[in-house]
Amino acid sequence: MSKLVIVGTVAFDAIETPFGKTDKILGGAGTFIGLAASQFDIDPAVVSVVGGDFPQKYLDLMTKNNIDISGIEIIKDGKTFFWSGKYHNDMNSRDTLVTELNVLANFQPIVPHDYRNAEVVMLGNLHPSVQMSVLKQMDKKPKLTILDTMNFWMDCALEELHETISQIDVITINDEEARQLTGEYSLVVAARKIHEMGPKYVVIKKGEHGALLFHNDNVFYAPALPLEEVFDPTGAGDTFAGGFAGHLARTGDFSFENMKNAVIYGSTLASFCVEKFGTERMQNLTDKEIYKRLDQFKNLTQFDIELS
Amino acid sequence: MSKLVIVGTVAFDAIETPFGKTDKILGGAGTFIGLAASQFDIDPAVVSVVGGDFPQKYLDLMTKNNIDISGIEIIKDGKTFFWSGKYHNDMNSRDTLVTELNVLANFQPIVPHDYRNAEVVMLGNLHPSVQMSVLKQMDKKPKLTILDTMNFWMDCALEELHETISQIDVITINDEEARQLTGEYSLVVAARKIHEMGPKYVVIKKGEHGALLFHNDNVFYAPALPLEEVFDPTGAGDTFAGGFAGHLARTGDFSFENMKNAVIYGSTLASFCVEKFGTERMQNLTDKEIYKRLDQFKNLTQFDIELS
Repeated sequence: MSKLVIVGTVAFDAIETPFGKTDKILGGAGTFIGLAASQFDIDPAVVSVVGGDFPQKYLDLMTKNNIDISGIEIIKDGKTFFWSGKYHNDMNSRDTLVTELNVLANFQPIVPHDYRNAEVVMLGNLHPSVQMSVLKQMDKKPKLTILDTMNFWMDCALEELHETISQIDVITINDEEARQLTGEYSLVVAARKIHEMGPKYVVIKKGEHGALLFHNDNVFYAPALPLEEVFDPTGAGDTFAGGFAGHLARTGDFSFENMKNAVIYGSTLASFCVEKFGTERMQNLTDKEIYKRLDQFKNLTQFDIELS
Repeated sequence: MSKLVIVGTVAFDAIETPFGKTDKILGGAGTFIGLAASQFDIDPAVVSVVGGDFPQKYLDLMTKNNIDISGIEIIKDGKTFFWSGKYHNDMNSRDTLVTELNVLANFQPIVPHDYRNAEVVMLGNLHPSVQMSVLKQMDKKPKLTILDTMNFWMDCALEELHETISQIDVITINDEEARQLTGEYSLVVAARKIHEMGPKYVVIKKGEHGALLFHNDNVFYAPALPLEEVFDPTGAGDTFAGGFAGHLARTGDFSFENMKNAVIYGSTLASFCVEKFGTERMQNLTDKEIYKRLDQFKNLTQFDIELS
């Protein structure tokens, strides 16, 4: 089975939305990416770090979902990364209430030896030097490296970010971050400038407005599935990235045509993620549910105009 | 040829964008709808009113584009409706600087007798009572009536708006207006509530984020074409409506499947409209350009996932 190396946080989240609030629940980019990627017939490993306070049941949950956790370091006398946020009524914006880095502050990722020959690497949102360190541990240059990042690193580690971006194949980034990174309002122009920084493929995530995939002059657009209710957007972007990476790892086909499908898989999985708090919906998703929703995506976007 | 009755303003616009500003140029919902609809092999008539200050060359331009202008009343000693606006840097919001209703204040539309048997009627954004008056002049209930409206009428003529909405088949409305009309943030829920007001089809326009078509439990999504530069958004929504109505009038097929295509045609024409000031780009658009862009829309949205 294809191996997929994922680096990202495994964390506690406490979330407040207009629909309710949670205590500390399972969260983190690595967790969401891993759960999404595990929907595919591949062998994903999450590289991360947690504290002694991290419950065994969460590790068991990941193992049960076919995620290899041998790369998750447990620092017994440390505390797990904790994030707390509150979403506004429109669900598109949020305030961060608490960020406790804890064991993440000195995170030095170690890719398990068994996974250093993986063909696909997914670098979840972390300090760009940490992302780079994962790349350097691979036996040889992976066939596809995907990087997710955020505005925080543009503010405080721009140079390292540029260096890491120059080494990867695909970047996933949201619209505001693409604008910040390039100083361009037009996403078409922003994508071109990001191409020039290195990545051959640029995925711009627009939340409820879907996602754009750019490759040279080619563009593909996947909407977000229109939902009656977005219950909790936490992890939707990571779930998108996990579905995207999972489909590509499974197929081993890194063409633009197949990346379109990867974007659709990512959007499909993200549409489930937001239906419940945290990872709840992603923990017991069936193939049948996924197929049904892919069919909805087809109906949502496919049309039949004959061009003469 | 299929007849299409269009009611809407024919006006002077003065526009300021980050790219420049215009003097008084040709504008108005009726004008944009007519120019878009005239791209199809149909017989569109615009019902409107202008003042004695309205240049013959603008009327000639419409005639040259196969738009019947016998329903445009000219009030010699009156002045043409004038609107002036200034777009902000993001091009998604604007301030209205001037609105001079002039001859529009007492507009009583008269549908030319030749067009009272038209099968499709497009009610451009106007007072809902004016829109209703056009419907009442038709010989019999048209096979398809499409209505565009805006928040202004929700604020000052809500009762008449509800009455007119209850009589039509398709409503085109933007996202914020759909939310205002229904009090619902979710566009899925808003569309359902608008269905309950009468229209069997609900089109929600999201500007640069595309458009959604709802019919009972069916949803279709068309993105806006990602553009390097939006030069002037004025008339884009009306151009969308004109393309939508034009395709439906030409085909006479009012099924949901064909409405998907109508949404794609509307989005395609709107993508041209914003490339230049006012109606400039729409005045000399070729079939070849339109086909090429429809092909871009296909590449932008179509994917090929086999569902087992």
